[in-house]
Amino acid sequence: MDYQQVLNEIYSEITPFVGKGKVADYIPALARVDANQFAMAVVTIDGKVFSVGDSATPFSIQSISKALTFTMAFAKHGDRVWERVGKEPSGNAFNSLIQLEYEQGIPRNPFINAGALVISDLILSLYDNPLESLRGFARELSANSTIDYNAEVALSEMEHGNRNAALAYFMRSFGNVTHNVDQVLNFYFHQCSLEMTAIDLARSFLFLANHGVIPNTGRRVLTQSQAKRTSALMLTTGLYNESGEFAFRVGIPAKSGVGGGIVGVIPQLLAVAAWSPALNKYGNSTAAFEALERFTTKTGVSVF
Amino acid sequence: MDYQQVLNEIYSEITPFVGKGKVADYIPALARVDANQFAMAVVTIDGKVFSVGDSATPFSIQSISKALTFTMAFAKHGDRVWERVGKEPSGNAFNSLIQLEYEQGIPRNPFINAGALVISDLILSLYDNPLESLRGFARELSANSTIDYNAEVALSEMEHGNRNAALAYFMRSFGNVTHNVDQVLNFYFHQCSLEMTAIDLARSFLFLANHGVIPNTGRRVLTQSQAKRTSALMLTTGLYNESGEFAFRVGIPAKSGVGGGIVGVIPQLLAVAAWSPALNKYGNSTAAFEALERFTTKTGVSVF
Amino acid sequence: MDYQQVLNEIYSEITPFVGKGKVADYIPALARVDANQFAMAVVTIDGKVFSVGDSATPFSIQSISKALTFTMAFAKHGDRVWERVGKEPSGNAFNSLIQLEYEQGIPRNPFINAGALVISDLILSLYDNPLESLRGFARELSANSTIDYNAEVALSEMEHGNRNAALAYFMRSFGNVTHNVDQVLNFYFHQCSLEMTAIDLARSFLFLANHGVIPNTGRRVLTQSQAKRTSALMLTTGLYNESGEFAFRVGIPAKSGVGGGIVGVIPQLLAVAAWSPALNKYGNSTAAFEALERFTTKTGVSVF
Amino acid sequence: MDYQQVLNEIYSEITPFVGKGKVADYIPALARVDANQFAMAVVTIDGKVFSVGDSATPFSIQSISKALTFTMAFAKHGDRVWERVGKEPSGNAFNSLIQLEYEQGIPRNPFINAGALVISDLILSLYDNPLESLRGFARELSANSTIDYNAEVALSEMEHGNRNAALAYFMRSFGNVTHNVDQVLNFYFHQCSLEMTAIDLARSFLFLANHGVIPNTGRRVLTQSQAKRTSALMLTTGLYNESGEFAFRVGIPAKSGVGGGIVGVIPQLLAVAAWSPALNKYGNSTAAFEALERFTTKTGVSVF
Repeated sequence: MDYQQVLNEIYSEITPFVGKGKVADYIPALARVDANQFAMAVVTIDGKVFSVGDSATPFSIQSISKALTFTMAFAKHGDRVWERVGKEPSGNAFNSLIQLEYEQGIPRNPFINAGALVISDLILSLYDNPLESLRGFARELSANSTIDYNAEVALSEMEHGNRNAALAYFMRSFGNVTHNVDQVLNFYFHQCSLEMTAIDLARSFLFLANHGVIPNTGRRVLTQSQAKRTSALMLTTGLYNESGEFAFRVGIPAKSGVGGGIVGVIPQLLAVAAWSPALNKYGNSTAAFEALERFTTKTGVSVF
Repeated sequence: MDYQQVLNEIYSEITPFVGKGKVADYIPALARVDANQFAMAVVTIDGKVFSVGDSATPFSIQSISKALTFTMAFAKHGDRVWERVGKEPSGNAFNSLIQLEYEQGIPRNPFINAGALVISDLILSLYDNPLESLRGFARELSANSTIDYNAEVALSEMEHGNRNAALAYFMRSFGNVTHNVDQVLNFYFHQCSLEMTAIDLARSFLFLANHGVIPNTGRRVLTQSQAKRTSALMLTTGLYNESGEFAFRVGIPAKSGVGGGIVGVIPQLLAVAAWSPALNKYGNSTAAFEALERFTTKTGVSVF
Repeated sequence: MDYQQVLNEIYSEITPFVGKGKVADYIPALARVDANQFAMAVVTIDGKVFSVGDSATPFSIQSISKALTFTMAFAKHGDRVWERVGKEPSGNAFNSLIQLEYEQGIPRNPFINAGALVISDLILSLYDNPLESLRGFARELSANSTIDYNAEVALSEMEHGNRNAALAYFMRSFGNVTHNVDQVLNFYFHQCSLEMTAIDLARSFLFLANHGVIPNTGRRVLTQSQAKRTSALMLTTGLYNESGEFAFRVGIPAKSGVGGGIVGVIPQLLAVAAWSPALNKYGNSTAAFEALERFTTKTGVSVF
Repeated sequence: MDYQQVLNEIYSEITPFVGKGKVADYIPALARVDANQFAMAVVTIDGKVFSVGDSATPFSIQSISKALTFTMAFAKHGDRVWERVGKEPSGNAFNSLIQLEYEQGIPRNPFINAGALVISDLILSLYDNPLESLRGFARELSANSTIDYNAEVALSEMEHGNRNAALAYFMRSFGNVTHNVDQVLNFYFHQCSLEMTAIDLARSFLFLANHGVIPNTGRRVLTQSQAKRTSALMLTTGLYNESGEFAFRVGIPAKSGVGGGIVGVIPQLLAVAAWSPALNKYGNSTAAFEALERFTTKTGVSVF
């Protein structure tokens, strides 16, 4: 398949969707991002790279990082992670707190904020230098040694992190956050501040398409079964309260972030990332969602 | 692949799981089913049939029928069905009513009870002889002209249907049930009472594996896109509050029922059904779930 | 105290509040009531009657009837009523269904709809001719033998009663509604359709001010303790989700209805009713609430 | 009325209730309190004091302090407090967080934890030396200059305060907590650690019975209207999720704490306090509740 041609087509069609919606504005560093940007990149298991648009521009990966930290925890802790977090979709945001109460402090899955905070807490236990380890992992995955946290974003998130602090303290009351909440939040907000280009992002998720092995280095990160299962988890829970819609329309495992990025995986084939900062009402990038739908339609490569 | 060999292996391993859990006992007709039964069947797109156990014994398909009625509605009404029902997973049962209130009478998806009731209401509008049409559709899909409703089960469900009546009246207060509630429930409880064997059931879902066309008759029921999307919906919402777990462990689109059946689809390849009456705490068959996990592990055929 | 003078003052001051809000419009028979009406009446334990405005105009007492049916149940069934219904305020309406689920079908109190439906169910068990008995009781309390149901209102409520039907079926699923739901709703909607003037209404609640004895006939309806306790229940739960506000600003036990009436009780002294059809956002009459606040302020007779 | 005689009778009858239930054990300092203690005290507006049992033993007043801090805020800020907190009962604890979300960070009333935290935040704004001011107020009310915080209890609460921290951060995300959360919690946990005897406690609430004026010093703390309204608030919301039950059975404005104290007010007459550490499942003292019910029954002094 000529992926560059597909990307070119999408790029020429996507303009009406770029800038549609609202850039995340809960922190200044995100609010000032230019809404009229768009990038898309495909990286295949055998190493080919295709891209269009602002694919050399780094952006804040935000919640997409949840799939990376989950992988770090799952790789090292195995199925014991499920003692701390569930695998089920979570329903609407409105219910997040009541569900947490009903389920005794166990978040529904690792990709909602509560779940990612628990994973952060777990990583503080599992790794001696958590922030070093995560950055190293991101660099290895992306084959880009310049990948780093954006300190301004991390700090700014911290200052506006009342909701996440509430979640962390709430779970701490159930014993499901064990470290000091400030430490947990510090790690969590740093992970969210990681910056990548669309190409970096696509390459970083290739290990999932490749059943657990990083193609670049040949290192196995997850077992084949774990990689498939992580993909399943992304398919059912990766796009907030629009996960069902995304599975329905796009049909591939994916993870989104409020920085405007969405990265998806076609098992045994490729990873694909799209980025555009303006978000729909569910917090997913309007144009990136649309671009990915067109990608699976044009290539016919959904998992179904 | 030698599917008969795979089924034989599973059959020899599954005994410890058969009878584990609790047979649905909310109506007498279900309560008296022998818990120690197990059947499994595979039907491939090219018409081969494999089976083990009690695969000639008909059982109540219950909620599995929701995928059939949804298909009837989707086929005839297209994307207008989404004006009446959502596509998102629903979180735990505890939240079902509050979510319905929060979302103004629009159920989260067509596979929870509230959603299936709305689909029933829609079918009463779309088809002149709803019960005739559904039975005819089930017979066509299964290539079995003896498929029928179990009148005793339907009546008994009606008598114990207070919760579903509550849901229907509640949605009627939002205008999302338009017919007389008794009519809606009568259709709904009849659909749940359909009886099939494991072989019937697997064959009935082949049209989804076959991208919308019934292999047996060559009739297109859904477009390719609609078939893929229906599969995506089953993957994210088909097993009640264990949908994430099933996607994670088994990794294929599937639908379960409290009669103990679960049917799954491997796109472009086959449909597989397992049945055993004893249910786990989520209302899914313990042994059928286990059998399907072993099936995708042994064959390596998950969608991921 | 010169109650007539107090009523006259209030009458002259209340104009800006009359018609403010929205007349209940969920059924035609209520929607067409003239919003610009206002009545107020005081009846003392020793039989004096004072009134202003449209005090000879009958109106639909609606939820105020819940205090009458509760009294009938409490009088005959005593503390066993608490096996079926609670005594606690209920929080906002949004939570009504989830609370009912959390508390296993036991409504928080007899003055929310769910609670009144349970009381209706109980009255169907306790009285041979429930509708006769309630009408007789209303006539005895009001000393007015023309008090009757409004058949048109009852029928119309029945046709728009989806929410209440949902509640009744939901509680029936927990075994807390035991009769046929249609019978329960028929009784319930008839009780809501009772019509009284402001004078009838004030007189009807005198037995609570008089510690359980109907002053007119000398018949004891409730024990002194039961009468006090019923008053306490009205104070904490009688005005929907504005009960706290009413207790705070007016400070007397009271019950409101969406017909625009509010009736209050000053223990050992009097009962006072106000009526004006336009409702605030909580479903309480704007002008009647205001009039009662002025009444307790001017007379200094709150219970605190 | 011979109150000493009434107290003596209650004291002789209350033994079966003392020690029934469970002493608050979430912090060590409370857990080690001897469950077999009981005290009761009455102080009349004209200064007479009656008591039985361990009425010279100080105990942790805990949530009873919420009525004192609310008074300080209401006295200084007037009706503007209602911009920050509601006046309605709150339903069961299970719903507290969802209600807070539904109502945009505005707690239902000042006597639930969320509401008291908002009042704490307000007091940090209104008073230059909040802890000094509160202690001074408690000493003035009780006419006891030895009243003080228990530093060990305050510290211990702080260490186990995850739930309250969660509530505070959650409300801070809505802008309804404006100070640093640690400051707010520090004030809040200190207020809870105030220690009083039953006699101190009864005397401290006399100003409410006396329509806003401290009988001892003649200083007006609240206007008459404010005092009545604060009493109404206590009646509808003062005993957690047992407020309705208490109003029903005891019939007076009161406030309870998990230290085992309950203090009630008979307008224009007296204040009465009971204390016994063992709590029922709602967090109210079993024996103190029972003692107060007997007190209003024997004296016939409910507000109804």
